[in-house]
Amino acid sequence: MQRHFLQELERLKADLIRMSSLAEQAIADSIRAFLEQDTELARLVIARDERINSFEVQIDNEVVDLLALQQPVAIDLRFILAALKINNDLERIGDHAVNIAESAVPSSGSAPGIQEDIPRMAEVTKGMLRDAIDGFIHGNPSLCREVLKHDDVIDDLNRKVVRDMVIVIRTRPGAADQALELIRVSRNLERVADLATNIAEDVIFMTEAHVVKHHVERRARE
Amino acid sequence: MQRHFLQELERLKADLIRMSSLAEQAIADSIRAFLEQDTELARLVIARDERINSFEVQIDNEVVDLLALQQPVAIDLRFILAALKINNDLERIGDHAVNIAESAVPSSGSAPGIQEDIPRMAEVTKGMLRDAIDGFIHGNPSLCREVLKHDDVIDDLNRKVVRDMVIVIRTRPGAADQALELIRVSRNLERVADLATNIAEDVIFMTEAHVVKHHVERRARE
Repeated sequence: MQRHFLQELERLKADLIRMSSLAEQAIADSIRAFLEQDTELARLVIARDERINSFEVQIDNEVVDLLALQQPVAIDLRFILAALKINNDLERIGDHAVNIAESAVPSSGSAPGIQEDIPRMAEVTKGMLRDAIDGFIHGNPSLCREVLKHDDVIDDLNRKVVRDMVIVIRTRPGAADQALELIRVSRNLERVADLATNIAEDVIFMTEAHVVKHHVERRARE
Repeated sequence: MQRHFLQELERLKADLIRMSSLAEQAIADSIRAFLEQDTELARLVIARDERINSFEVQIDNEVVDLLALQQPVAIDLRFILAALKINNDLERIGDHAVNIAESAVPSSGSAPGIQEDIPRMAEVTKGMLRDAIDGFIHGNPSLCREVLKHDDVIDDLNRKVVRDMVIVIRTRPGAADQALELIRVSRNLERVADLATNIAEDVIFMTEAHVVKHHVERRARE
């Protein structure tokens, strides 16, 4: 029984790594599709989201089976419940990739100018996601603390994009549609960073049984 | 033991109802603060979010205790796991109320005009949240199916707001900042409706063990 339980746990870990790879790939492709106005790649991201969706259901079912058949306690129980939440967060990241891909339309009218902040946000966000998942798999809370620090970088970049685009809209009303798409992409990346932050907080909570989540929020507010 | 388990389950239900009331109130107040530019009320919404945050942690701990001590199976297990997800969704709704409250700043410059769509979106969204939670507590999947139908209404209203605000930005660049705030509020309401939809889908899944979630997404895409 115990050996079987460990095997099931390893399978759950491996599936979550696969799920996070799919989510990360979706974000990378959707950003590329947006920046290069590649509607073909955008369509691919949207079509592939079904795999992420059905994989979420599969992992959810693994978790239910593990809980029902093995009845784990203590640290194993916390790990499995964290897996359930992370799985849900990864599926939502896939949805944000779809949103970004939907903004990948060939521009008509004048472009709002090259936005070097979007590729930077995408890189930081993907790194956050990777670190959060690595931190989860290897039970490494210090890796997850790094993720929390980067969330502010993304928030600042998002605010900068919105500010820049407001200027574009004011000075060149003809570029308003595209400026709004850029804001939309930026906000979706900010949401992905939030979800990576959620994952990191859950890992820290799980490993340290310490409620970092709302402490951090409170500190940020003060 | 069995009697104790039922008591704990009732307590979990009651706490989730309380949690959803807090989230619903936060949305209602944040919208009022935004529409009436009431910065005092906005500050109250932001301050009260800490209660929602700490309540989330309390409910999470109840769930962990229930699973560890009672080791429920089958329908009880599904119910408790759904409670865990719903609890997380409600906390996120609180965060969206904070975002909306942050947009409640007295307007300088010309206003983008009365936006009757925002109060309507708020009403529909609050109704969705209430129905989803009622559906969960009473195990009523048909109530939850109604929630899914309303999600399209919210998506349409959100698109309309964005379209209207783009016209405002183009024709009156001086109202750009406020038009963007309106778009921000609209998108936050859309996210709340998405979270209510998630809750409804989880309830349908739990009661019917039927994966409606991604079926609906697929149908919407076709």
